[in-house]
Amino acid sequence: MQVTSQFKTVALVGRSHTPGIGEPLTELASCIARRGFDVVFEADTAQEIGVTGYPALRPDEIGARADVAVVLGGDGTMLGIGRQLAPYRTPLIGINHGRLGFITDIPISDMREIVPQMLAGSFEREERTLLEARIMRDGEPIYHALAFNDVVVNRSGFSGMAELRVSVDGRFMYNQRSDGLIVATPTGSTAYALSSAGPILHPRLQGLVLVPIAPHALSNRPIVIPDDSAVSIQIISGRDVNVNFDMQSFTALELNDTIDVRRSRHTVPFLHPVGYSYYATLRKKLHWNEHPSLADDPPT
Amino acid sequence: MQVTSQFKTVALVGRSHTPGIGEPLTELASCIARRGFDVVFEADTAQEIGVTGYPALRPDEIGARADVAVVLGGDGTMLGIGRQLAPYRTPLIGINHGRLGFITDIPISDMREIVPQMLAGSFEREERTLLEARIMRDGEPIYHALAFNDVVVNRSGFSGMAELRVSVDGRFMYNQRSDGLIVATPTGSTAYALSSAGPILHPRLQGLVLVPIAPHALSNRPIVIPDDSAVSIQIISGRDVNVNFDMQSFTALELNDTIDVRRSRHTVPFLHPVGYSYYATLRKKLHWNEHPSLADDPPT
Amino acid sequence: MQVTSQFKTVALVGRSHTPGIGEPLTELASCIARRGFDVVFEADTAQEIGVTGYPALRPDEIGARADVAVVLGGDGTMLGIGRQLAPYRTPLIGINHGRLGFITDIPISDMREIVPQMLAGSFEREERTLLEARIMRDGEPIYHALAFNDVVVNRSGFSGMAELRVSVDGRFMYNQRSDGLIVATPTGSTAYALSSAGPILHPRLQGLVLVPIAPHALSNRPIVIPDDSAVSIQIISGRDVNVNFDMQSFTALELNDTIDVRRSRHTVPFLHPVGYSYYATLRKKLHWNEHPSLADDPPT
Amino acid sequence: MQVTSQFKTVALVGRSHTPGIGEPLTELASCIARRGFDVVFEADTAQEIGVTGYPALRPDEIGARADVAVVLGGDGTMLGIGRQLAPYRTPLIGINHGRLGFITDIPISDMREIVPQMLAGSFEREERTLLEARIMRDGEPIYHALAFNDVVVNRSGFSGMAELRVSVDGRFMYNQRSDGLIVATPTGSTAYALSSAGPILHPRLQGLVLVPIAPHALSNRPIVIPDDSAVSIQIISGRDVNVNFDMQSFTALELNDTIDVRRSRHTVPFLHPVGYSYYATLRKKLHWNEHPSLADDPPT
Repeated sequence: MQVTSQFKTVALVGRSHTPGIGEPLTELASCIARRGFDVVFEADTAQEIGVTGYPALRPDEIGARADVAVVLGGDGTMLGIGRQLAPYRTPLIGINHGRLGFITDIPISDMREIVPQMLAGSFEREERTLLEARIMRDGEPIYHALAFNDVVVNRSGFSGMAELRVSVDGRFMYNQRSDGLIVATPTGSTAYALSSAGPILHPRLQGLVLVPIAPHALSNRPIVIPDDSAVSIQIISGRDVNVNFDMQSFTALELNDTIDVRRSRHTVPFLHPVGYSYYATLRKKLHWNEHPSLADDPPT
Repeated sequence: MQVTSQFKTVALVGRSHTPGIGEPLTELASCIARRGFDVVFEADTAQEIGVTGYPALRPDEIGARADVAVVLGGDGTMLGIGRQLAPYRTPLIGINHGRLGFITDIPISDMREIVPQMLAGSFEREERTLLEARIMRDGEPIYHALAFNDVVVNRSGFSGMAELRVSVDGRFMYNQRSDGLIVATPTGSTAYALSSAGPILHPRLQGLVLVPIAPHALSNRPIVIPDDSAVSIQIISGRDVNVNFDMQSFTALELNDTIDVRRSRHTVPFLHPVGYSYYATLRKKLHWNEHPSLADDPPT
Repeated sequence: MQVTSQFKTVALVGRSHTPGIGEPLTELASCIARRGFDVVFEADTAQEIGVTGYPALRPDEIGARADVAVVLGGDGTMLGIGRQLAPYRTPLIGINHGRLGFITDIPISDMREIVPQMLAGSFEREERTLLEARIMRDGEPIYHALAFNDVVVNRSGFSGMAELRVSVDGRFMYNQRSDGLIVATPTGSTAYALSSAGPILHPRLQGLVLVPIAPHALSNRPIVIPDDSAVSIQIISGRDVNVNFDMQSFTALELNDTIDVRRSRHTVPFLHPVGYSYYATLRKKLHWNEHPSLADDPPT
Repeated sequence: MQVTSQFKTVALVGRSHTPGIGEPLTELASCIARRGFDVVFEADTAQEIGVTGYPALRPDEIGARADVAVVLGGDGTMLGIGRQLAPYRTPLIGINHGRLGFITDIPISDMREIVPQMLAGSFEREERTLLEARIMRDGEPIYHALAFNDVVVNRSGFSGMAELRVSVDGRFMYNQRSDGLIVATPTGSTAYALSSAGPILHPRLQGLVLVPIAPHALSNRPIVIPDDSAVSIQIISGRDVNVNFDMQSFTALELNDTIDVRRSRHTVPFLHPVGYSYYATLRKKLHWNEHPSLADDPPT
């Protein structure tokens, strides 16, 4: 069979430590291979599910060789591989295993039908923003990381409030006393930031949101800034403050350390089935009303 | 004295029904006139304070003839004249009379010093977005208005919840049961939207925020969308629902009426003193911390 | 069959204007009558469903003659009849027709089994607090009402913020600028107050909650006070302010009117099936988690 | 001079590590001693400020011997000594050094005038509730503590969400995924709980509030329960979860540990100046409006 798709090599990635993921993945692999695509597996996934007969590649090799990656798992799985593939701009297709995800939006029951259609060219493409963070100590960068959802500065559970000095584009914003501060992308706005009373940011919005965590001042409200802003967070006081990136790779901070956060020059392309609606995902995940409601008229 | 400014004609506008505003306005007028600018007064202002000796113009005449308008009053005064001057792109300078405003950011005590500097060319220019709303009934537009802060659909105080069907860019978002819905610009994000738990939007953010008012579903959170989105709100149920624009010009709605909201093609230029900081205004208005705080260590 | 129950006369009340409610009600009536109870119908219900063969009584007659009332409908139906029966302390049993309610907690599918058990003496009894509100104008009471859920002072949809002066037990609390103020009982805490960011109050808590609606000051947070407090709300400014009781009987207010709210001396007994759990109702209504959740571990 | 007060021995307690606290404390000591009271000092305070000439007692000795304790410091100082004196029911008078506190409500500038009046019998007495918490591991109590403000179960800053199973009075409430859970007294309701979106509880309310910290489910709202409830929190998942009491004495928890929280049988009497108003304190601390506001009428 002749493939005229813009994609030639398709990588498959599965959530780690997930019993029962082998069968749908291998089934998907043959289904795709039958249509003439070259199928490769992410190396850890291949080893976990014990698949052979397909090349097993590290994420950087996938970035270099694959034209698209199909991810089976949850939102965390997407974030993980997304961060690694970001420099290569490999587009991602997300299939949810378990609950519907915000970004793994194809039900596993539909993947055999939908994924081939998408690989054949029927999809909607959307670019997602990443953050790039740098920890500065005594004027020197000591750590560097990408984040898909958020960069979170957080007090330890073993101490009281932290105090953070926040500047944006070199302009002082405030000294904030709180449990911490979240800098979130639109993708991250429906994750931890939402639990901390942040707003939802549409994926197409060119913005970032700063969400204080349990701020001492009740007027320290979430603030949405243009995504070309440079955010700088300095640790003024607080014991055992740390920073994490997508709730991964926690790093201990010292007083006066500064975390510089800005939009990464990389974006990650997400591919959605044709007719995809971000609002439909929100409705399902957040139990929003779809239908007019019944009235309850008390007797008068 | 020779003026080489980009401005030649300066309009003065004062808050209406405000005792004591005549003296600072006339003083400002002579101060500006002495520097060689042509000074004109907004007609209502001129009549209220009884000033003569300067041309008294209607807002549309100001738009046609003045190069800049200096407004003395509160944020409401700025919104009012801003909506009227929007089609002319007349830049605005805001001086607060009374409390510091979010957009009238020059203290009256500093105006004699700062306004001439700004007219001479020392200022920072910022474009503010406006909304354009159209009420549709039976397929026909029945009302049209501009809003600087927000378009608010609201149940009457004399009835229970309203039900609204919200779509964005032709895609269904949700059926919302609530007291109403606010569509706010960044300028409006610190007004009514903030009281209804909306986030702050930086003026430079190209976004709008939808803030539900007392929504029945706790997950109906504020959502920030790109400002080129077309928002459509249909009245599904609720008695005596109405819509207002900047808390002005309230209009009664009927079932099935639709309010279409989009960014206006007009923007309003605000001029700020050099060194202006939006965050400094937020800090003052919202009582944010400027300084590191004292610890309170209990005895152990 | 011999009835040894504490109940002899059972009143049946149905939600008005509800097609399809006649059949389950008449079925329930015969099921109860067969067990030897005297069954009476609320007069409007009887007329609407066209039932004959049972006495049809007005609410006050039910209060005087019935030992218990079984209500089929929604929470609004319970509130309505509960307010009317409050002076008589008639216990209520609530069966939900349609969605599960917060206070109509017996599913219609279970009523044939559960209601007879409850009438036979197997139930848990709970007292619910009511509010009593009086509107004072020029020192004279002009209106008086009971509320089960809440007393709500509200600006009209056709005007800006209201300003309210709130005192508790004769002590000044604050001048609040807002859309209004909710005084809610524990029963009302899961109704409108919850939509306005109020806390949930356990029905057994001897407290009332004051919940500001869209307050101008972000620190005007909900405050829970002992339920023997006397709350007084005076209209300081605002056009077309009104007050309602359980979202019923809206009354227009004038400047300087005062609404005095206190706990009613009446309470309404609710009867629940044995094993009833308020938290189980919350979990179902609010989609709270019942089960440990699945992890989503991204690949490392 | 003859003292006819109900108080004979007065203990003085100061905030530790606070330069400049020695002078006002010794001055207060002589002022009180001159009026015929026996003055004793808390031992650490005496040592820090180097005072001699008065007995220096440990907290338990103060509890046994003093009739009242006057505390100079911040709210944390009050909480600390209050927990220690709770078993002795020693009344506390709080003077704020630095900022006005929620519970240290006498300004230092007024203490020379007000404290003697209060010691002479002019005061309002208020009982404040404490919590008693017990950590259970494998069925055995491993730790026990009192809390004045709150018992807080908290994930570590170095891990993702915790999962907590909450029961009240032996009835299952929910499995909550969050950063943690606060159980707060009315006194604690204006501390950390307020930062996490909890309501304010009036000190006289017989209630406790459960406030989830950054809960995953948006409907996991604060819930106020009667203060004779027994709250039980079990650690279901989460790494490095810990519990603290009044942000003091942090204790690491293991999976399946349970924290049992209930009202302590002790209460702590607070003495306030005559005319004291809790609402006045709230107004000052939370910047609530005291006065009617100015309108801002835009030109029409």
